[in-house]
Amino acid sequence: MTSVNEGWETARVSTAAQARPGAPEPPDTALDTLLALVTDDLKAVNRIIVERMDSEVELIPQLAGYIVASGGKRLRPLLTLASAQLCRHSGSRHQGLAAAVEFIHTATLLHDDVVDGSDLRRGNASANEVFGNKPSVLVGDFLFARAFQLMVEDGSLDVLRILSTASAVIAEGEVMQLAASNDLDTTEAIYLRVIEAKTAALFAAACRIGAVVADRPTAEEEALEQFGRNLGVAFQLVDDVLDYSAHQARLGKSIGDDFREGKVTLPVVLACARGDSQERAFWKRCVEDLDQRDGDLDQALDLMRQHRTLEDSVARARQYADAACAALAVFPPSQARDALLGIVSFCVEREY
Amino acid sequence: MTSVNEGWETARVSTAAQARPGAPEPPDTALDTLLALVTDDLKAVNRIIVERMDSEVELIPQLAGYIVASGGKRLRPLLTLASAQLCRHSGSRHQGLAAAVEFIHTATLLHDDVVDGSDLRRGNASANEVFGNKPSVLVGDFLFARAFQLMVEDGSLDVLRILSTASAVIAEGEVMQLAASNDLDTTEAIYLRVIEAKTAALFAAACRIGAVVADRPTAEEEALEQFGRNLGVAFQLVDDVLDYSAHQARLGKSIGDDFREGKVTLPVVLACARGDSQERAFWKRCVEDLDQRDGDLDQALDLMRQHRTLEDSVARARQYADAACAALAVFPPSQARDALLGIVSFCVEREY
Repeated sequence: MTSVNEGWETARVSTAAQARPGAPEPPDTALDTLLALVTDDLKAVNRIIVERMDSEVELIPQLAGYIVASGGKRLRPLLTLASAQLCRHSGSRHQGLAAAVEFIHTATLLHDDVVDGSDLRRGNASANEVFGNKPSVLVGDFLFARAFQLMVEDGSLDVLRILSTASAVIAEGEVMQLAASNDLDTTEAIYLRVIEAKTAALFAAACRIGAVVADRPTAEEEALEQFGRNLGVAFQLVDDVLDYSAHQARLGKSIGDDFREGKVTLPVVLACARGDSQERAFWKRCVEDLDQRDGDLDQALDLMRQHRTLEDSVARARQYADAACAALAVFPPSQARDALLGIVSFCVEREY
Repeated sequence: MTSVNEGWETARVSTAAQARPGAPEPPDTALDTLLALVTDDLKAVNRIIVERMDSEVELIPQLAGYIVASGGKRLRPLLTLASAQLCRHSGSRHQGLAAAVEFIHTATLLHDDVVDGSDLRRGNASANEVFGNKPSVLVGDFLFARAFQLMVEDGSLDVLRILSTASAVIAEGEVMQLAASNDLDTTEAIYLRVIEAKTAALFAAACRIGAVVADRPTAEEEALEQFGRNLGVAFQLVDDVLDYSAHQARLGKSIGDDFREGKVTLPVVLACARGDSQERAFWKRCVEDLDQRDGDLDQALDLMRQHRTLEDSVARARQYADAACAALAVFPPSQARDALLGIVSFCVEREY
């Protein structure tokens, strides 16, 4: 068992979201609150997902079902549902579109795992590990096409524009990440550009289409887009911190995956920038040359603790979380707004 | 140098297309005729392709440019351009949509080569061989998203429906092919289902959207869809025959790639069905077990010659070619119709 950094967890302070009236719930309850608010919608979304991942080609629903059922939080479709509710949408169009959002996300997960050679996803064997890389690539393509079929059935060119643009940006972000991996010249600015593209673009689109289906003014569309984009960046920052988290390790989850792959996430960017030449040589050997030895992860965690890079990465996430919350100010108070503010806390304070 | 089967090449007869008045040109001239007919359109399409595969993420235009420039015939976008002209479309919408069709095709090529582990594409090193599998998967995703952005800019939900459905069917066809590879229980019916999905669906869609942009009646849309679907099946049948072709070998092109991968194409399906138990044991060892030795490809070619499976596969292609030509009967004679009929000959009689 490796020793792990506990700094950022003990340094926790309440977020802006928590400081606002109406959104004071602790993280887990916040997700439950959101789930309760859209429970019927979510059931409909899950039905659509199961129906539309079906195919006469048996391997497709097998593989798609495996990853869809593998315990994801459905965070992105939940954002679409809650955003539509925030905008007082009364129809059911947002359900099919939330399913489309989840299909795009699932397709990118399948391709990510192939690209990263990952053998685990959400604590289970990844689809590429169980079914092989080839069907993972192809079923990803199938789900991506299905997402567009769902959007076409919905019939909004605005939604199609938002989600096709997001899809192109996600792919750009993934390629940027590939180019930046094992490269310690990656700056904080480059890192933020990568996660804005690979993660936050879909959060932004998922939220924005909630306003589109409700036919709300552009200002509200843009507010939801800003909300989603900032939330997405905060979410990914925390995700990257959790890969070095003591709590993850205590839960028996593997940590240090990013380190082993040589991914240059913010905790590494900051540690490298703040380290002396000997430390930079250590990072170069581990992250650029991937020449890793026993004890290297421990040393990496020590350096991160010494330079407070996990705390500072979470602090950066909180700035984005604040911006996400601020973007919702154009909407009058409502249960949906509270639930979305609560989700900001959940994303920043979560331990899984 | 391996010995190769020459049977189907000497057995050539003229196709139905050639028997029709107005479409008598030999194969190569037919492609030139089509190119001349849409030359300005094609230049515009090529400009759009170069413009829209661009990205600030340098690796994307590098890799996309590599495969787009690698000598493809642009057959699918040409079909869109010629179909639009057949329908007397006078605007420029078909140009952007032809580029979208080529992007979808290029995305599937990139993913195919990763899935097949191919090191060659059109006689050059494949993109995955030059740039690696990871960027090939991601740039494929990018081009697929770009295709949908182009369609959204065009603004036709009908086109979006046709091409999103085709994209889902292509992915289904690829997964079916994966499930059928190394499986000698693959029947001719299954083989035809696979190629109808993985190849003919995009040919059909590429043609159909030519009628959609010209706002023609459903009967003409459907005629062009039938034309494209039958042409696509004929094209793929011939493609699969060419992998065992003497002429290919004389041109210095590699043959037997499908054999080495254990792909069960029609020449193999027929040889296996017509062989005795000893021959079936040979096919099982080579194609199912992939236990191949020196001389096996020669023996495979001998068996194909003995059972006339290449000639019969080409004969099957000609039936589809006839059906393609027949589908165009609803259109009055025109240069565009002649060019499309000529392309049928080109696809069936081509030697490359």
